[in-house]
Amino acid sequence: MINNAQKVEAVPVKNVEIKSGLWGERQATNRDRTLPAIYHQMKTTGRLDAWKLDWKPGETKPHIFWDSDAGKWIEAVGFSLTTHPNPEFEKQVDEVVDLIEKAQHDDGYLNIFFTSVEPQNRWKNLRDWHELYDAGHLMEGAVAYYNATGKRKLLDVLSRYADHIDTLFGPREGQRRGYCGHPEVELALVKLYHATGEKRYLNLSKYFIDERGQQPHYFDMEASERGDDPRNFWAKSYHYCQAHTPVRQQTKATGHSVRAGYLYSGMADIAAETGDTELLSICRSIWDDLTQHQMYITGGLGPAHANEGFTFEYDLPNETAYAETCASISLVFWAQRMFLADPDSRYVDVMERALYNGVLSGVSFEGSRFFYANPLASYPYINPYERFSGIHTDHHYHRSEWFQCACCPPNLSRMVASVGGYMYGTSADTLYVNLYNPNRAKFEIGGSKVQVEQHTNYPWDNEIQLAFQLDQPTQFDLALRIPNWCRDFKLAVNGAPVSANLANGYAHIQRKWSSGDEVSLSLSMPVERVVSHPHIRQNAGNIALQRGPVVYCLEEVDNGSHLANVVLPRDSRMTPSLDASLFGGVGVISGDAVRVEPTNWSSGLYKPESAVEYGQSPLTFKAVPYNFWANREPGEMRVWLREG
Amino acid sequence: MINNAQKVEAVPVKNVEIKSGLWGERQATNRDRTLPAIYHQMKTTGRLDAWKLDWKPGETKPHIFWDSDAGKWIEAVGFSLTTHPNPEFEKQVDEVVDLIEKAQHDDGYLNIFFTSVEPQNRWKNLRDWHELYDAGHLMEGAVAYYNATGKRKLLDVLSRYADHIDTLFGPREGQRRGYCGHPEVELALVKLYHATGEKRYLNLSKYFIDERGQQPHYFDMEASERGDDPRNFWAKSYHYCQAHTPVRQQTKATGHSVRAGYLYSGMADIAAETGDTELLSICRSIWDDLTQHQMYITGGLGPAHANEGFTFEYDLPNETAYAETCASISLVFWAQRMFLADPDSRYVDVMERALYNGVLSGVSFEGSRFFYANPLASYPYINPYERFSGIHTDHHYHRSEWFQCACCPPNLSRMVASVGGYMYGTSADTLYVNLYNPNRAKFEIGGSKVQVEQHTNYPWDNEIQLAFQLDQPTQFDLALRIPNWCRDFKLAVNGAPVSANLANGYAHIQRKWSSGDEVSLSLSMPVERVVSHPHIRQNAGNIALQRGPVVYCLEEVDNGSHLANVVLPRDSRMTPSLDASLFGGVGVISGDAVRVEPTNWSSGLYKPESAVEYGQSPLTFKAVPYNFWANREPGEMRVWLREG
Repeated sequence: MINNAQKVEAVPVKNVEIKSGLWGERQATNRDRTLPAIYHQMKTTGRLDAWKLDWKPGETKPHIFWDSDAGKWIEAVGFSLTTHPNPEFEKQVDEVVDLIEKAQHDDGYLNIFFTSVEPQNRWKNLRDWHELYDAGHLMEGAVAYYNATGKRKLLDVLSRYADHIDTLFGPREGQRRGYCGHPEVELALVKLYHATGEKRYLNLSKYFIDERGQQPHYFDMEASERGDDPRNFWAKSYHYCQAHTPVRQQTKATGHSVRAGYLYSGMADIAAETGDTELLSICRSIWDDLTQHQMYITGGLGPAHANEGFTFEYDLPNETAYAETCASISLVFWAQRMFLADPDSRYVDVMERALYNGVLSGVSFEGSRFFYANPLASYPYINPYERFSGIHTDHHYHRSEWFQCACCPPNLSRMVASVGGYMYGTSADTLYVNLYNPNRAKFEIGGSKVQVEQHTNYPWDNEIQLAFQLDQPTQFDLALRIPNWCRDFKLAVNGAPVSANLANGYAHIQRKWSSGDEVSLSLSMPVERVVSHPHIRQNAGNIALQRGPVVYCLEEVDNGSHLANVVLPRDSRMTPSLDASLFGGVGVISGDAVRVEPTNWSSGLYKPESAVEYGQSPLTFKAVPYNFWANREPGEMRVWLREG
Repeated sequence: MINNAQKVEAVPVKNVEIKSGLWGERQATNRDRTLPAIYHQMKTTGRLDAWKLDWKPGETKPHIFWDSDAGKWIEAVGFSLTTHPNPEFEKQVDEVVDLIEKAQHDDGYLNIFFTSVEPQNRWKNLRDWHELYDAGHLMEGAVAYYNATGKRKLLDVLSRYADHIDTLFGPREGQRRGYCGHPEVELALVKLYHATGEKRYLNLSKYFIDERGQQPHYFDMEASERGDDPRNFWAKSYHYCQAHTPVRQQTKATGHSVRAGYLYSGMADIAAETGDTELLSICRSIWDDLTQHQMYITGGLGPAHANEGFTFEYDLPNETAYAETCASISLVFWAQRMFLADPDSRYVDVMERALYNGVLSGVSFEGSRFFYANPLASYPYINPYERFSGIHTDHHYHRSEWFQCACCPPNLSRMVASVGGYMYGTSADTLYVNLYNPNRAKFEIGGSKVQVEQHTNYPWDNEIQLAFQLDQPTQFDLALRIPNWCRDFKLAVNGAPVSANLANGYAHIQRKWSSGDEVSLSLSMPVERVVSHPHIRQNAGNIALQRGPVVYCLEEVDNGSHLANVVLPRDSRMTPSLDASLFGGVGVISGDAVRVEPTNWSSGLYKPESAVEYGQSPLTFKAVPYNFWANREPGEMRVWLREG
């Protein structure tokens, strides 16, 4: 399956200039609001000054995750600087990079908590204490910042740290056979390998992946060394961290979903980098399990708060969905890598589903508030953490400015800043177009320089134009992704309809391309009434509305309260339109529904049905994109709607 | 509202002999299986030997609740001995009573944990540490055991302890203005007052009730004295323990639902005992809030696991319902007291709902396994505590032999053993018949000795006969409860139809009764399709099946899996019958339904509705009493069923 001719390379962020459209607007908000908000929070919570390593007993302790927050923030800034230079952002990062450089030990070790708070516990608990996870995020930040600015300082610091890690961990005599409880360093080491050319980093990543879950179990051994009983692991099972068995024996998505997404991404990286078809096949099995049994329609992953992760197949509750923003982001990472190793649009279909729904919902429209969990239905009072107090306040689920465990905001920011890197792929003779959004992108194919300019108002509109500029006429295969939600499409080259060869979800046009060539793609994009697998009990009798890649929802602000009483007749009219007044212009769906409610209910909770008269009052509903919910007056929200 | 003429007295357990019927069978199981199982668990977990106070560092610590487990077990045995003497049970209790007597301090103090483990912490944390709660359960046990056997030893021990508590706590100079975070001692002190005639116990109970929630807040003060910041209370709000405001300012059911039920029971006791109409009116407000906004159809209370309690009105999720067995039991206690203070059948309707559904479901049919939480829908894998591990096993919710916090099993046992005490009430001139089950009961009314024998197969059958024996013909008012689920009834005296005066939910027959008089009551008892309040979002479009007081459910063992796809047509036939082969003979309901499932779904989670063909296959469903669910092959269960 993996051969060099077929192997696809991502087109890096710096080659894809996004100026407008949905992603252009989100990137502008990311630069103008999100990145400053994150920097403000990082500063005021002490996360950046903690690199001075001057914590003293009695003060608020740095958290063991803080290094990763810095890494993701630096990475987000790096991606943003790649296409939009900003001296102030660069100065902010440079100051922190100076602190980080000073914080590095002579042996290369680098960690806030285990330097300034508990130096005696360095590497004592890989299962829980996140040192390698922290290292990974700093590596990713260092690579992105180096790619954006050419500044090597942080990259060199992280290379020294990687060298140190490489010395400590491995199969050789005297080395520890450990790996991190929270995967992340695996994919980061591959990035570091690409940035530095140092193949040891690739090998170390592969080592971490293959050592995971082996017996005797490292987490057991290190627990015993600490004097802890391994059986007292707080999460009860190594399924939680995907270390219950060696990864090559895993076939299902399990445990904490962000850990899962990062691990599987690293596995796909190693499969692609080393031509490891066995590992790729493992990845495909897990992919199939996840996308066929355990994924929300929003691309959300992990229904359960308890383990922030997966439970069992078809267990996808809506109101109590965890569906962490970071988990959907990790799904984007993994999908991209699966596509690169195995160019098939089915991976990109999932990537698009996550990007336009479960990822984007993680940030407010104005850009400075964030969701950690992304439920698919919301009613007043249901946040199980806040309900604990039993206080009778009229509480609605809302986005927060920050979190104690602040993984999601900078993750969201780096995702939005780097979305251009997910739009295309190139192989020796093929240009894959995966995402549709206005942009100008540059490639090298067949020895020629190719430039493409996309024009579209996707996902609100179904027409896409691509205009080519080449330094010389060049033969290559243009592979346009036909999303799986699209049941009909039309294609024209220079105004003349063409019938394309459809393979692996792509419409292929093979020809000698010249400057001035124009391709137009028209994707049939009606409102779809979507039903779910009959074993998802929570959605029985319900439908969801989707148009293009966007999942819609009903909000109380548009439709009144008690949305459970709103029923969509099976033949009800559905009309999509662009609401120019909403969120800078987004697609909405209006249609006919009825409110089914008793007309003679005075009091009491339960009555014989025969004593109750039900009225049906007509309602013209308005559905808005799920990704923009909870940006107006607080209230109920539902993705899955009763049909009858 | 409360005047002596109207005041109703409960008819004690010892006057009501239950020999057969549903409650006769449950009591036999309670004696033969439940009480021995509880004793076995109490023994093997060290709960009884802990009274030796010989705990040593390094050993498993007694839990701060263990005293209460002993109290409830003794009470359960006491109630059982009242009508069914058993020398072995009595010997078991006597041995423990000897230990308890020896465990008492010279000053009267009595507590396992704060004697043998943390003596320095006696009375340091009334908010969390349950000492008065423990005392209350021991008092209840002592009273029941004394009433059953005439043995005073434990009663005297608890009286000395109550004297000690009465010295320590109160409004006088030098006394602490405290009360327990977990209400229970309030209602227990009223029982102790009745058993001993010592009015100080009644006054102390009233003091605890009226002191609750006053400012400056005792829980704040004691936290500060311990060196804790009161704002760091783990439960976040005193709503959790109904101490957020003085009880006379409370109008809604809040917080931990067992604490709530016990507190409100104590409040109703004090209202009735002292003629406190203000307090009774407060009780009524809270009662209305609870029964009109926050109660499951099963009489379950408290939807949330997080606080084991109430959240907000109409928030009644089925799958994740906590609905602790103890909470439904506490509702029975409270309902009985409300009835006694304000004789209206609306309280007894709720009591009956809880008894036949949310209480009985707490114990297995064979008698030695228990539910803590009583969900109204169950699917494989949903126990949120066990799902944490993410292990892919086919897990179904099931009853357990015991719990670390073992409040429910002995609570259930004492409830079943004492159910005779809830069947009747008497005032100066009225005999109230509240529950229907075969029994022989004795009363004194109007100076005469009256004996009644009930014959019925209620709740599976709708015919009830009452036969009277009197030492002399006596004029009194026979008040037969007409349950609120019953829309039509027939009444006859000595075979001649009579039309009774219906008031406050009772059919009253005033006449001079003589030996040999017979009354027959026929309660119309069709299968009812019940709908719930339109703001209970979880039940929208769903109905429940109820016949008489019994709520029914569908189980997988009878109806196959994926019960969410079973739809009951609005006009479907429903036939009740007695299934002699099931649980010794219980009512079941069969009827016509359809399974709505796709016929062309191969794989995938989400599809356009237009691409899916749905088939409707007819299904003759079988519904069984909810209270007996999870007693056969494990599988899905649903109370609320889709209608369409």
